[in-house]
Amino acid sequence: MWSVSYFDVASTAPLHPVARQALTAALDEGWADPARLYRSGRQARMLLDAARETVAEVLGARADEISFTSSGTQAVQLGMLGALKGNRRRGGRLLHSAVEHSSVLHTAEQHLAEGGEVAVVPVDRLGRVDPAGYDPDERTALAVLQTANHEVGTLQPVAEVAERCREAGVPLLVDAAQSAGRLPVPGGWSLLTASAHKWGGPAGVGVLAVRKGVRYASPLPADERERGRVPGYVNVPAIVAAAASLRAVRAEAEQENARLHALVERIRTEVPRLVPEVEVVGDPARRLPHLVTFSCLYVDGEVLLTELDRAGFAVSSGSSCTSSTLTPSHVLAAMGVLTEGNVRVSLPHGTAEADVARFLDVLPGLVAGVRAPLGLDLPVAAVRQTLVIDALGKLCPLPVIELAKRIGEVAPGGTVAVLADDEAARFDIPAWCGMRAQEYLGEAPATDYGRDRGSAYLVKRVS
Amino acid sequence: MWSVSYFDVASTAPLHPVARQALTAALDEGWADPARLYRSGRQARMLLDAARETVAEVLGARADEISFTSSGTQAVQLGMLGALKGNRRRGGRLLHSAVEHSSVLHTAEQHLAEGGEVAVVPVDRLGRVDPAGYDPDERTALAVLQTANHEVGTLQPVAEVAERCREAGVPLLVDAAQSAGRLPVPGGWSLLTASAHKWGGPAGVGVLAVRKGVRYASPLPADERERGRVPGYVNVPAIVAAAASLRAVRAEAEQENARLHALVERIRTEVPRLVPEVEVVGDPARRLPHLVTFSCLYVDGEVLLTELDRAGFAVSSGSSCTSSTLTPSHVLAAMGVLTEGNVRVSLPHGTAEADVARFLDVLPGLVAGVRAPLGLDLPVAAVRQTLVIDALGKLCPLPVIELAKRIGEVAPGGTVAVLADDEAARFDIPAWCGMRAQEYLGEAPATDYGRDRGSAYLVKRVS
Repeated sequence: MWSVSYFDVASTAPLHPVARQALTAALDEGWADPARLYRSGRQARMLLDAARETVAEVLGARADEISFTSSGTQAVQLGMLGALKGNRRRGGRLLHSAVEHSSVLHTAEQHLAEGGEVAVVPVDRLGRVDPAGYDPDERTALAVLQTANHEVGTLQPVAEVAERCREAGVPLLVDAAQSAGRLPVPGGWSLLTASAHKWGGPAGVGVLAVRKGVRYASPLPADERERGRVPGYVNVPAIVAAAASLRAVRAEAEQENARLHALVERIRTEVPRLVPEVEVVGDPARRLPHLVTFSCLYVDGEVLLTELDRAGFAVSSGSSCTSSTLTPSHVLAAMGVLTEGNVRVSLPHGTAEADVARFLDVLPGLVAGVRAPLGLDLPVAAVRQTLVIDALGKLCPLPVIELAKRIGEVAPGGTVAVLADDEAARFDIPAWCGMRAQEYLGEAPATDYGRDRGSAYLVKRVS
Repeated sequence: MWSVSYFDVASTAPLHPVARQALTAALDEGWADPARLYRSGRQARMLLDAARETVAEVLGARADEISFTSSGTQAVQLGMLGALKGNRRRGGRLLHSAVEHSSVLHTAEQHLAEGGEVAVVPVDRLGRVDPAGYDPDERTALAVLQTANHEVGTLQPVAEVAERCREAGVPLLVDAAQSAGRLPVPGGWSLLTASAHKWGGPAGVGVLAVRKGVRYASPLPADERERGRVPGYVNVPAIVAAAASLRAVRAEAEQENARLHALVERIRTEVPRLVPEVEVVGDPARRLPHLVTFSCLYVDGEVLLTELDRAGFAVSSGSSCTSSTLTPSHVLAAMGVLTEGNVRVSLPHGTAEADVARFLDVLPGLVAGVRAPLGLDLPVAAVRQTLVIDALGKLCPLPVIELAKRIGEVAPGGTVAVLADDEAARFDIPAWCGMRAQEYLGEAPATDYGRDRGSAYLVKRVS
């Protein structure tokens, strides 16, 4: 695997260990055609049925409402086109927010090109729609809203919009690609879409759920697989793995969300302090736990990404699904925020605090380096936020002398961890802090810093 | 894995060991988003590019003509709809044979329902189209022909049809799902479709090749992936595995085809001798090496399949992609042959001769058992075709006595294998054959019959 810190889970998540295990098992036990009547076919069918039950349970649907697609994009396309076709007697009006995934926008473009009508609901500066912006009427065949934005992490008011749609009798497609597995799926959807590789499942599996009673007419040629909604041979092993990982990540979610939320909060707080002329975008409170985006003025996002890649960080920039075309993000444009120099950090499950600290450590210098050729007169950013001084094996007063010499290397508010195993440090370091008006934060085991002995004495630079 | 003999490779092939190995490696090295610019993304892109080169080379295409779909059915649907849309200025006429895969027929039905015109080219009793039946004219937007039929194995005259299409300037979509990897792809196609799980690749990968210069307009909403032809996240690990197995099976094909051809020939010859009122269908000469279908009069195919399943054989019946709906096969109907009681045997790579022998051994009794309740007065079929007499540990003349007592249990022309470790058998058994006008075929190691000592003396029942 890579020695880099992978901070782009919103593009694709590394395969969850449970998914890999389930995939390997299902390649042995579920490889046959589930439509066949012989033993291996029946076995594949049983595994498929069990996976459908699992996914239905986690997403709050009935098993017979779930069809497996080959991607989240296919789920969105089939869901939108099928609902528009099934409800075309209502009229040809389609409602969606300005910050939906490109698969929604492209399907809307095709609907428009074929004579349909499209109304785009704007968002505020935080990327959030006003529920009142959704005005489903008697001509509206479908409304679409994401649970959470894929570029800035803002959570959308799905329940309120669902209520407005319900009152108007208009079906609502909820795109849960970024939140499924992480957060409970809001109720009130008529159609629900998701993508397994975002939650640690394998590529090749999307989910399209269609509530009982919702009018749906397949836009593609007939096929008997997946309730007639998704043509083609069913990928049982991948579906089994997708279901297993969905159950696993959902079980871990509450604890892991809290941890990642704190790490993202740290990035949201620190980046504007460490980097001049930067804007953190998206809703600071109603947000995905693991995702944050900031934009650096005067910076070419692709260049900064290349620098971060060299420094060992895999992050995204620009519109998440069109970065290879280098077009500006339609999401950031709709929010009215900077569309240049943006960096999306999305943390996978299990992200280590030390990796986030290292990211905050290297980012200011990299941004400054990218900006340097421009000759701008920008405020000077603090050099670094954290410093670890290894004084293991050194006797007092050497640890205190090191601390005094180097505390200036961190920004005010930053932290120095002095690793020492001389017992005297436990008294000398707090005492030095008192004398020099620095804040002593306490003691932690040096194992937190990867050492097998000694303690870490944490000092916050105040002055 | 299963202890059964899996004879349904035309539905799906067991994962080739090379594919499994490649999949495992690519889950580690190609899991990231190939559209991303960081290192793991670039690595995934490189693996994807290499897989595309491999598939292009084996299928006789350029790499930039290949798009990966999520199934063979999706490849057919996109290929047909995209070519019809791209060539609609010619007119709305679609030409296809009567024995195409259901994905072709269903796409044609949709084309018809949307105001298009469809002309169906008939086949002869062997399931083969007459090239002259293809009459591409100035209104024809697309012609479709399979390389080989998926139900009866008949090879189609693709080159001749391609030449007629070329002369008329009409694009030809060639569906190579049943032959790709096994046989060279015939030239002359404008669009080519295939499915990886038929050649031992994983589920979830199809191939759509569109020749340079062929008019194509995507029928689905825009997406930048796969040359704009296949929307959705690209399943790199599965594609890498598909390419690896395609290369592997192609390298083994000549040798394995010859072996499987002989096994199928044996089934084609023996089944009508062993089972009364049976018809072997499909072209006896121009055929896939590994596939044979026969129909048993007065027999419910599903019941016979259940019996075969119990006896340890996984085979198909009826239209290969609609067996779960129990509708009669459109292929057999178009050929004008029996559509009831049909059994499709399609042998995977590595099928053991002993498994085919066992199949021929049990089939007559199972068919007779299914027919018994009907009280029909059918010709008596030979009871069995092979018999193994275990005389290990018995001293002569006991082995010869057993042979004389039991040779009547096999049909004339059938074979008895006498397993014996008394050296005298080597002389006595040929001698007995000479005296009783039976044919002595020779000696084989008893290990061929799963024993660890002794020899097998093979006797053909002549009288």
